[in-house]
Amino acid sequence: MQSLQDKASEWSGVKREDAFAIDEVNLFQKLGLQTLVNLSTKFYNRVYDDEEEWFRSIFGNSKKEDAIQNQYEFFVQRMGGPPLYSQRKGHPALIGRHRPFPVTHRAAERWLHHMQLALDETPDIDADSKVRMTNFFRHTAFFLVAGDEMKNQNQQTQCKHGIQQPAAP
Amino acid sequence: MQSLQDKASEWSGVKREDAFAIDEVNLFQKLGLQTLVNLSTKFYNRVYDDEEEWFRSIFGNSKKEDAIQNQYEFFVQRMGGPPLYSQRKGHPALIGRHRPFPVTHRAAERWLHHMQLALDETPDIDADSKVRMTNFFRHTAFFLVAGDEMKNQNQQTQCKHGIQQPAAP
Repeated sequence: MQSLQDKASEWSGVKREDAFAIDEVNLFQKLGLQTLVNLSTKFYNRVYDDEEEWFRSIFGNSKKEDAIQNQYEFFVQRMGGPPLYSQRKGHPALIGRHRPFPVTHRAAERWLHHMQLALDETPDIDADSKVRMTNFFRHTAFFLVAGDEMKNQNQQTQCKHGIQQPAAP
Repeated sequence: MQSLQDKASEWSGVKREDAFAIDEVNLFQKLGLQTLVNLSTKFYNRVYDDEEEWFRSIFGNSKKEDAIQNQYEFFVQRMGGPPLYSQRKGHPALIGRHRPFPVTHRAAERWLHHMQLALDETPDIDADSKVRMTNFFRHTAFFLVAGDEMKNQNQQTQCKHGIQQPAAP
């Protein structure tokens, strides 16, 4: 069975070592907090104004300012800064926390489309950092698509067989 | 609705700020790689020899040496060291990667029982580090119980309503 990260690499076209090249540089120190706040603000301004209603509606139950804070705190923590996200919300648990949402291939591409434009609109992000972040985002988006498919497969199997709980140990 | 981290705190009895006090000290630098390898080795030696078959069998499809490596690489990465886990396997995605397993309250307590004994058997872990790690492990174990219950609730709802996939965007 293909692993989550193998699927992520295949679907994204980004090798794992390129995705995690964000760890070779401390991007938080290089870019600073305000740049990451700006990036997430530009990203979610686009998302909440998306003309594609199917994509915009995925975020319909969240306030924009909360979405922005969740995202930039995760970026700060993951890119070498203080663990702002975990101090406030606990483990990132990326697949678990995306479980309520339909993270399809199409949704991943739309997310990446907006993020690419947000990166392009944030001039404080230098070219090298932009490549690292683009690869990380692309790989991660398809990692979450792989997580979403795993969820759906489990549900189908368990509904079919009438198993609603794993055997209690 | 109670959040994952609220449930984790309630069930574990560990406040979030105590769980993530592991981030106030670089435990990887303080303890070193070999100590974390030793901890995971002692832990899984216990687990794979557990007299309680229901618990031991949860790990039945994994090789012990792989379980040890996965765990200590995650600890190294999460406790301030190099991102060994992500370089090899991608995002930790703690809830997603535990989805195949029945992470019940009882299983969490058994995991913690073995981990407490493994900590006690690892004399290179000083008292302050041991408190931080114990709180982190306890909170995290019940965070995963909360993730497991979310999975089961989703499945029950979706089987009941005959919804096997979220509406395609």
